[in-house]
Amino acid sequence: MAEHYIASAKIQDVTISEGLLGRVSRLVKEQVLPYQWEILNDLAKDAVPDHSIENFSVAEGNDEGFPSHCIANFKIAAGDEKGDFYGMVFQDSDLAKWLEAVSYQIMSAPDPELEKTVDETIDLIGRAQQEDGYLNTYFTIKEPGNRFTNLCECHELYCAGHMMEAAVAYYRATGKDKLLKIMCRMADLIDQNFGPEENKRHGYPGHEEIELALVKMYEATQEERYLKLAKYFIDERGTKPLYFDIEFEKRNHASHFSYLYPPYGMYSNGPKYAQYHLPIREQKTFEGHAVRCMYMASGAVDVARLTGDQKLLETCRELYRNMVQRRMYLTGGIGSTPKAEMFTSDYDLPNDMVYGETCASVGMMFFTKRLLETEPKGDYADTMERALLNTCLAGMSLDGKSFFYVNPLEVDPIVSKENPDRAHVLPVRPAWFGCACCPPNLSRMITSLAEYIYTIRDNEVYLNLYMSNHAKLCLKDREIELDVLTEYPYEGLIKIQIQSDGDYSICFRIPSWSKDKWSGEINGREVVEKPEEGFVRLERSWKKGDTILLELDFEPKRVYANPRVSKDVGKVAVQCGPLVYCLEEKDNGKGLQRIYLPKEAQLQLVRRKDKLEGINEIHTKGLRLSELEEDSALYIPDALWSYETVDLVFIPYYAWANRGENEMTVWIHEK
Amino acid sequence: MAEHYIASAKIQDVTISEGLLGRVSRLVKEQVLPYQWEILNDLAKDAVPDHSIENFSVAEGNDEGFPSHCIANFKIAAGDEKGDFYGMVFQDSDLAKWLEAVSYQIMSAPDPELEKTVDETIDLIGRAQQEDGYLNTYFTIKEPGNRFTNLCECHELYCAGHMMEAAVAYYRATGKDKLLKIMCRMADLIDQNFGPEENKRHGYPGHEEIELALVKMYEATQEERYLKLAKYFIDERGTKPLYFDIEFEKRNHASHFSYLYPPYGMYSNGPKYAQYHLPIREQKTFEGHAVRCMYMASGAVDVARLTGDQKLLETCRELYRNMVQRRMYLTGGIGSTPKAEMFTSDYDLPNDMVYGETCASVGMMFFTKRLLETEPKGDYADTMERALLNTCLAGMSLDGKSFFYVNPLEVDPIVSKENPDRAHVLPVRPAWFGCACCPPNLSRMITSLAEYIYTIRDNEVYLNLYMSNHAKLCLKDREIELDVLTEYPYEGLIKIQIQSDGDYSICFRIPSWSKDKWSGEINGREVVEKPEEGFVRLERSWKKGDTILLELDFEPKRVYANPRVSKDVGKVAVQCGPLVYCLEEKDNGKGLQRIYLPKEAQLQLVRRKDKLEGINEIHTKGLRLSELEEDSALYIPDALWSYETVDLVFIPYYAWANRGENEMTVWIHEK
Repeated sequence: MAEHYIASAKIQDVTISEGLLGRVSRLVKEQVLPYQWEILNDLAKDAVPDHSIENFSVAEGNDEGFPSHCIANFKIAAGDEKGDFYGMVFQDSDLAKWLEAVSYQIMSAPDPELEKTVDETIDLIGRAQQEDGYLNTYFTIKEPGNRFTNLCECHELYCAGHMMEAAVAYYRATGKDKLLKIMCRMADLIDQNFGPEENKRHGYPGHEEIELALVKMYEATQEERYLKLAKYFIDERGTKPLYFDIEFEKRNHASHFSYLYPPYGMYSNGPKYAQYHLPIREQKTFEGHAVRCMYMASGAVDVARLTGDQKLLETCRELYRNMVQRRMYLTGGIGSTPKAEMFTSDYDLPNDMVYGETCASVGMMFFTKRLLETEPKGDYADTMERALLNTCLAGMSLDGKSFFYVNPLEVDPIVSKENPDRAHVLPVRPAWFGCACCPPNLSRMITSLAEYIYTIRDNEVYLNLYMSNHAKLCLKDREIELDVLTEYPYEGLIKIQIQSDGDYSICFRIPSWSKDKWSGEINGREVVEKPEEGFVRLERSWKKGDTILLELDFEPKRVYANPRVSKDVGKVAVQCGPLVYCLEEKDNGKGLQRIYLPKEAQLQLVRRKDKLEGINEIHTKGLRLSELEEDSALYIPDALWSYETVDLVFIPYYAWANRGENEMTVWIHEK
Repeated sequence: MAEHYIASAKIQDVTISEGLLGRVSRLVKEQVLPYQWEILNDLAKDAVPDHSIENFSVAEGNDEGFPSHCIANFKIAAGDEKGDFYGMVFQDSDLAKWLEAVSYQIMSAPDPELEKTVDETIDLIGRAQQEDGYLNTYFTIKEPGNRFTNLCECHELYCAGHMMEAAVAYYRATGKDKLLKIMCRMADLIDQNFGPEENKRHGYPGHEEIELALVKMYEATQEERYLKLAKYFIDERGTKPLYFDIEFEKRNHASHFSYLYPPYGMYSNGPKYAQYHLPIREQKTFEGHAVRCMYMASGAVDVARLTGDQKLLETCRELYRNMVQRRMYLTGGIGSTPKAEMFTSDYDLPNDMVYGETCASVGMMFFTKRLLETEPKGDYADTMERALLNTCLAGMSLDGKSFFYVNPLEVDPIVSKENPDRAHVLPVRPAWFGCACCPPNLSRMITSLAEYIYTIRDNEVYLNLYMSNHAKLCLKDREIELDVLTEYPYEGLIKIQIQSDGDYSICFRIPSWSKDKWSGEINGREVVEKPEEGFVRLERSWKKGDTILLELDFEPKRVYANPRVSKDVGKVAVQCGPLVYCLEEKDNGKGLQRIYLPKEAQLQLVRRKDKLEGINEIHTKGLRLSELEEDSALYIPDALWSYETVDLVFIPYYAWANRGENEMTVWIHEK
């Protein structure tokens, strides 16, 4: 598979300028990362997690998880302070993700002060590391004798993986290898403990993550053992006898989470929950916890790419197809139930009960980015963009101060409050979570967004995502520069200015929603090439100053679900470009579920620079089923009701829940 | 309030003959009661409860609750056998309900052999009673020192209430008072322990039931203390400081159910769960556990009726109105969530997540029967009939061998299997439950059905429910006999044959669905009276041989939900007479959620004596949204789909799930 040079762009090489994602990037830099640092250090006293709506779900747990205590755990493990471990068993990963995000931030914009903070933190991490290289504050403080005895539940390898990602990122950002060396020692220790050899444990992580991290470690250090270990974890998963059954017996059925969950709670669907129901290569559908699935598949694509494992790659592509054809919400959310935050079955996509965890859609970006590193296929980028611009962005408020863990497609605040089945569907973003995986995961994805924009294959540049940026890209044979200028996703016009002479190809994506209507020109002359697999390939001798103008279809569009999605039958959604739209009560009044969008209603795009940090609204006329009088009968002949014409205002889904508690819906009845 | 003589008919005085309910009554007598006796004695070895779909709900719990061990618990408490208590803390009530049901059965048809079994069982109960009158096998065996310390959770008063009901029923059936005396001693003990006096506990049951039972004890024994105690429990409920908070503190926060539920599980909505959030007279809506609500309201109506408490009665009527106008499914099911099996909020009636516990609809019959004992109002009887002929009957298979606890309005077996949110929605009735409240509750309601058919007020006979029967009724001034002949609910023709001369009134109900189209004649002459409050009152000097012919509207009808029920917007249901209909996959193929019923489609009633023990089908033409090809996109422009015309066959809802696992739906899209 190494016949082609394929790589994503490097963060240092791409500068995202203004526009929606430029604004979000700046927000993460200026607001979110400093705020998260305060959280990790228990300084953000006002960020009390929201417990007003009691939470039944697994991930949010019932952990009154404030303060974070994350840095404190490291200090205690290091012997710097006295105290007890506090937090989730995977609390360390919050710091790791923050370090990784900050490293990417430093790549884009050097920041000596921030670097100093990171260096001091790495010193702390070094002190928390045990003599033999072991690093995990929970086990070091609470259960030093029980290392590697409960991989199924205890996230030891997961935390290690996250810290490895941070180590590689910081090394790449600064050249400093202290954390990298720390994590090499940990990786070596894991390698000594896990593998096919008889004297080693034949296990794998309960929550995938270390697989893709080990690949990064391999790429940073060229240490073959790390790639081999990643491959081992992928290969071993789901083989019989099941390792997690064996370790469960060995520890006398002890459960780490028994304090939180009854025995029939967390692992309700057994091995599927953590994807060990089958060896990976035999899996045809994503099953179980959606985040785990994305991380597993990301690591598997990496291993397949580097080892030339076509069978494994085909498995990943089949899993991808199953997901996008049968198990993904219109918004790029995944996970149809709060119970174990998991996939359920094909076409089971309830809009009210959806989990749609922010982390899962971030994970979907990891996965699709890696698929793009194996073949240029517009569909992967379409999915990446669907996740990014809808669910991922919705995961954070416009001011960067509050976050969604769950991203519903239908919310009624009264029902969320009074019906415990819907308690996970918060109508307003809380400031933090007891289980705080999502906010720092968003941060590391946003700060590394540059990597997602371009893929380079030999001397071809693939434009996967459109946003204004300046890029300096290393092709196989040359370095080139180019500028992209656009207001996308608020308009369809994209200008690409070539800054380097030479023979190479610019391949721009025609998103599936624009495939029937788009136009391109180079220096005023029409592009005649047709898209193949979603990309139009312009192979030219480029001159500095050449300009490509691309215009995508920005007519607002109706979209329907496949009729097998029973919950969306008779309903319509509205999209414009890559953005899925929604109705909010603030704009449309109460009773959103009584609104009908007539088939013939014209959808009108209205630029609103003044609203919600700048959006396009979609205006149209709809019908609303009138309410009956207060004490009317519950069941009636239809003669009793009527419709009233209403002005409808749609806003982009990502911008919902920024104006207080209110109803929201993505799918609307069609008439 | 005692200005009128008001009473329900006596079981001994009404003989239900053939027809739907005659068949069900015979089934309970011949199949269900003997089977339940085997269960109670752990002899029904094939009745393993269904655990193939794991159950997260509270009531079904996670109790691998077979064998029942119910009789064994009594033997152990009596000292007849050695062993430990096994089962739910309210296991005793299973026997009590069976004894009550059997007593009603004996009223209708004396059965010396059965009576002998009951007498022996009563002897056993007597031996299990403690010296001071205390009776409860759980506390006697497991926690003898903890009597009355956890009323909130431990169902002590609930179990006592059920046994009191059994005692009164058996006394009325046979004149034998041994069990009645046993329960008087228990009632006396409770009376010594609870009440307003300073030296007594100021508590009330965590699960209402004893209130209505004490009223029965009062009516059987004329012991005023029992009525006073019932009133005390009603009055005390929800007063501040909250008794359950006090006892919780006293027992150091110990929770009986901690082995089953995490702290945030069972009592998730706090005091509302058991209706102690407010004093009863201040409650405006039913809140919390639906069965508890029905029992509370039933006891409250009894107390209000006997004490002339108009305020309390008005509270009950307001609660009733809130329920039928905002919180009841079309099928007469109540409880919108499996979490705590409870009411949620007005108009929140999800068809897929519904709980609709069989016991709750049985309780709704208790409640409406009592409301009819306070005023003749057809609406109460309409609701009673809705619950009886739809949810209650659906609670049992046509062969009487399996039972539903949950009665959904929409089922997809794959989703029930793969989506844990829907695990409570079983597509097939299990043979028994770990928590076996529903089957014996159905039995006692069916065996006492005669009581629901007629209400007598002075010299007026109110016909609440229509079914073939012979009745001998004690009016205020005379005893009369009459016969009802009908195939209702399979036809609208009802013939009432007068068997007694005299001046009295026959008041027949015009159900709300027939109010615009009905006719009546007496001896061939048209009835000119109009219905008032749902009843047509025929005051005559009747002669033996007089014949009333009533014809109700049996055109199949479309019915719609109030537009505030967001889940039913755009949907239609089909009803014929009192029966709600549904589509089953067996008759209509897979993909019921893709079916549309066109507005203009004619509904045709088809008699099918050969099918499902004899039903009326409703036939019509519908449209089905065609499936796309296997690997079609998940989100599409509508141009891609089409409709196919399909023959639709609706069957009565109560008869669903008698032909194996399949899809079912009550609400259908309308086009």
